[in-house]
Amino acid sequence: MESYTKKLLTSHLDDLAHPVIMIIEDSDEDFYTFTRVTQNLDILKRSLYKFLRFKDGDESLDYLLREGDYQSLNAPLPVAILLDLNLPGTDGRDIIKRVKQTSHLQMIPIIVLSTSSSQHDIQTCYGYGANCYMLKPMGVLEMQKTVQILFEHWFQFAILPSYGQFIV
Amino acid sequence: MESYTKKLLTSHLDDLAHPVIMIIEDSDEDFYTFTRVTQNLDILKRSLYKFLRFKDGDESLDYLLREGDYQSLNAPLPVAILLDLNLPGTDGRDIIKRVKQTSHLQMIPIIVLSTSSSQHDIQTCYGYGANCYMLKPMGVLEMQKTVQILFEHWFQFAILPSYGQFIV
Repeated sequence: MESYTKKLLTSHLDDLAHPVIMIIEDSDEDFYTFTRVTQNLDILKRSLYKFLRFKDGDESLDYLLREGDYQSLNAPLPVAILLDLNLPGTDGRDIIKRVKQTSHLQMIPIIVLSTSSSQHDIQTCYGYGANCYMLKPMGVLEMQKTVQILFEHWFQFAILPSYGQFIV
Repeated sequence: MESYTKKLLTSHLDDLAHPVIMIIEDSDEDFYTFTRVTQNLDILKRSLYKFLRFKDGDESLDYLLREGDYQSLNAPLPVAILLDLNLPGTDGRDIIKRVKQTSHLQMIPIIVLSTSSSQHDIQTCYGYGANCYMLKPMGVLEMQKTVQILFEHWFQFAILPSYGQFIV
């Protein structure tokens, strides 16, 4: 993953042809399951979407806000963010709040993918402006179906705010 | 549709068992196509969701804000809003802005379903806080697929902010 981040750091034009979906997920196991189930998705096979994964809330915000190690980053913003809630450093709830309060970031759709079915968490996320909240299911088959619906909906049928940005 | 609105006006407990999806659509033809394609959806056959349609932006806001003719309305808020953009009276863009700036309404997911592929419209809607923007396709088969993905995603897999409200 480090090598892909470096590629983003140095190759601006290349990235324009490869819209990035930012995945903020601290669990290696959950990220592995996620990438495994996405390998069966037709939409990804046919598309140019790339994943960029962060494990840590603070680093994710640095990347989005071009702060810290990313101050001189010359790469487009992600077209969407898939977000786990409980993270080291700044947690997912605070990431939603910060992104949605930042004028040049607030349009990026944030799709929460969490194991928490707490009504408080769900309401907090929507209240902060998350675009959608989905439960991370147990089991690979259930995860496969959830991720398939999520991808078909957001990356095949929905029109993202970045619409037009990648027609180069 | 009037009779269903009246039912909502008088039957609070009944509505708790029948979560309402608000459809704001001025075109009778588009609403007819929409209801026709939803009749084939498994999720609706198995669920208790009810549609409540408004043709006019001002009346939609009155209903949501319990103003005008709806001042004494005793009915739960919709679990989601499917919104056309160009409407008589207050238009769809202003409805998004008003709903997302009203603290007790802002969590209701707004899914825009529009024929406009204007980047300005798309960015305006997301900027005002719309949860999702989808293109209203021409043709019944394409509409069928779009509505199917939309319903599977939002009403079968996503967890809505009203989660728990209808477990009575």
